Amino acid sequence: MQSYRFENVYIKSVSAVAGPKEKDGPCGNLFDKTYTSLYAEKKTLEEGEKTMQEDAINIALIKAGLDIKGPELLISADLNNQLACSSKVASSYISSFLGIYSACASSAEGVILASLLLERSNIKNALISSTSSFGTAERQFRYPLEYGIPKKQTTTLTVTGSGSMVLGKKTTDLKITEATLGKVFDPGWKDVNDMGGAMSFAAYKTLKSHFENLGTKPSDYDLIITGDLSIIGSNILLDLFKEEGIEIKNHNDAGKIIYQREKQKAFCGGSGIACLPLVAYTKIYEKLKKKEYRKVLLAATGALFDPVYVQQKQSIPAICHCYTIERG
Amino acid sequence: MQSYRFENVYIKSVSAVAGPKEKDGPCGNLFDKTYTSLYAEKKTLEEGEKTMQEDAINIALIKAGLDIKGPELLISADLNNQLACSSKVASSYISSFLGIYSACASSAEGVILASLLLERSNIKNALISSTSSFGTAERQFRYPLEYGIPKKQTTTLTVTGSGSMVLGKKTTDLKITEATLGKVFDPGWKDVNDMGGAMSFAAYKTLKSHFENLGTKPSDYDLIITGDLSIIGSNILLDLFKEEGIEIKNHNDAGKIIYQREKQKAFCGGSGIACLPLVAYTKIYEKLKKKEYRKVLLAATGALFDPVYVQQKQSIPAICHCYTIERG
Repeated sequence: MQSYRFENVYIKSVSAVAGPKEKDGPCGNLFDKTYTSLYAEKKTLEEGEKTMQEDAINIALIKAGLDIKGPELLISADLNNQLACSSKVASSYISSFLGIYSACASSAEGVILASLLLERSNIKNALISSTSSFGTAERQFRYPLEYGIPKKQTTTLTVTGSGSMVLGKKTTDLKITEATLGKVFDPGWKDVNDMGGAMSFAAYKTLKSHFENLGTKPSDYDLIITGDLSIIGSNILLDLFKEEGIEIKNHNDAGKIIYQREKQKAFCGGSGIACLPLVAYTKIYEKLKKKEYRKVLLAATGALFDPVYVQQKQSIPAICHCYTIERG
Repeated sequence: MQSYRFENVYIKSVSAVAGPKEKDGPCGNLFDKTYTSLYAEKKTLEEGEKTMQEDAINIALIKAGLDIKGPELLISADLNNQLACSSKVASSYISSFLGIYSACASSAEGVILASLLLERSNIKNALISSTSSFGTAERQFRYPLEYGIPKKQTTTLTVTGSGSMVLGKKTTDLKITEATLGKVFDPGWKDVNDMGGAMSFAAYKTLKSHFENLGTKPSDYDLIITGDLSIIGSNILLDLFKEEGIEIKNHNDAGKIIYQREKQKAFCGGSGIACLPLVAYTKIYEKLKKKEYRKVLLAATGALFDPVYVQQKQSIPAICHCYTIERG
C-alpha cells in the first residue's frame, strides 16, 4: 500500500449538514445546518440529498472565503448509483470534477487525492464533498423505506448528511500530513447486515501499513477514528491488533459516535459516506481547533458491495484509506 | 478547467480484450484476446465481465514485464453500480486501489490521475483499467437483454471488453504529455437514447479549454479522437467548433470506429467505458508505434445518468476529460 507525507496541504474550512436523526444525536448542536426531514423540503429523496450536498459545499466555500462558483477542483462521492447526486450537483460549479467511489471510504480517497494534486499542480484550492442519505441508500441497497422488515442487531443505519473540506496551500493551523491509499480485500464476508465485520480486516491492514510505511505507532496519535466499523467491526479491529500484542487504547468509531444508539434505536451505529465526515468535521475538528488534540488519524472504511452481486451470493470486498489531520 | 503537462510519464504497455461483436468489427484482429460470448464461459454476465477485466489487466502486466500480483497503484472503472466489477477484480492484486467514476470518461480520468500521481509520488508503475459489458450495462441502465424493445436510430450500443494501460517513469517511445480535467455540464438533455448529443457540449468545452490552457490548436494533433459521441454527437461537436470559425478535419470517434455500423446493426455506433480504450489501444496505438502518428489527443466523454433520475425526468449531466499520447 502506498503511503505519503505532505508538507503544504492546509485545511481552509470544513462544513457539515445533517438530517433529523443526526441532529438529535451527540453532534447535533455542532452542525452548520440541519433539516427537519430527509426531503429537505424538496419533492423527492434525491432532491433532498442534492440540497444537502449543495448546502455543505456552499457553506465550506463561504467559510474558506472562496468564490461560490467553486474551487479549481471538486472531488465528490455519494452512494447513489452512478454518483448521481454528486454529478448533478457538480454541474453548478466551474470546477474540474473528479468522481470517485470507494463506498464509505470515499471521503478519505478524496482527501488523499486532493492533497496529492494540490502538491503536484498549480491549483490553489480543492473541495472534497462526501454525501449519503438514509432515504436513497436504504431503498437502493436494501428495501423501500416503507417496508417494515425486522432488522438484525448487527445492522448499521446510513447517515443522512453531507460534509465538505476545502484544502489549500496557504498556511492555516490545521494540515493534512500523512496518508495511506488502501487496497481491496475480499475475506469472503457475505452478510450485508453486518458491514462492520466486512470492513474490519481492511481497516486493520491499512492502519498496519500506515504505521509501518511511515514509521509511526498508534500512540503517536491523540485519536484513531475509523468510520464506520460500528461496534462489532471496531471490536474485531482491536482484536486483530491485540493478536500481535498491540493494544490500541485511543480508538473510536464515527458509527458509534453519531447516534445515541440505545435511545435513538440505532442498532450497531451509523454508516454511509457522510458518517465519518459528520463526526470528524464537528466534534473532532473542534478539539483540534481548541488544541485538545494535536494529531488525529482518520481511517475511512468502505464495503464495496452491489445488490446484484449479493443476489448472486458473491462475497463483499472492502477497502480502507486513511489520513491524518495535524496542528501546523 | 485544469490542464497539465507531463514530462516523465511513459506508456509501458496497453492491452485490449473484447466480446464477440467487437471481434467482428474493424479492430477485431488487433485485440489481445476475444470471447465467443458475453459470458466468457462463466455462469453470469457479471462473472464474464470480471474475467475480461482480469484478462486485460494480466495481459498488460505481462507485456510491461511486471509482477502479476499487480503494480503499486491500480485505478479502475466500470459501469456496474458501485463499481462492482472493478472492486471485485481489484481484490486479486496487491495494489493500492482508486475507484473512479465518470461514466465513459473514466478511462481518461484514470490516465490523468495516474500521470499526476506518478509524477508526484514514489510509485514506479500504475495500471488503469476500463471495462464495460453490453450484457450487464443494458440490463442495468435500460431493459433485460431478452426484452425486444424497438431501438431509436440515435441509440448506441455498450461495448463489451476491457482495456488496460500501464504507465511508468522509465523511458519508452510513447508518453502522456498533456491533459485536461473536465467539468460537469448539464445542458438539459433528457433523451437517454441519444447519449452522443448529451455529451457533445462537454467534449467541445473540454477540448476548447485544452487548446486555450496549453496554447495548442487542433491541427497540432495527428488525430483528435472522442469516445464515444457516435455520429450525431460528433456532428454537433464539429458544428460547435465551426460556429467559432474553427474547422476540425482530423477528428474521429471511437464509437464510429468500433463496429461496421450498417453490417453489424450498430445504430449510431459504440459506447461504454471500454469503447475508446478498445480503439485507442489497438488501431491508434499501432499507428503511433509505426510512426504514422506523432501526437494524438484522446477525449473521453461520459453521460453521468442514473436510471432513478431519468425516471424522475431529470436531465443528464455530462463530462469530458482529455489527454495526449505522443512519441517521446
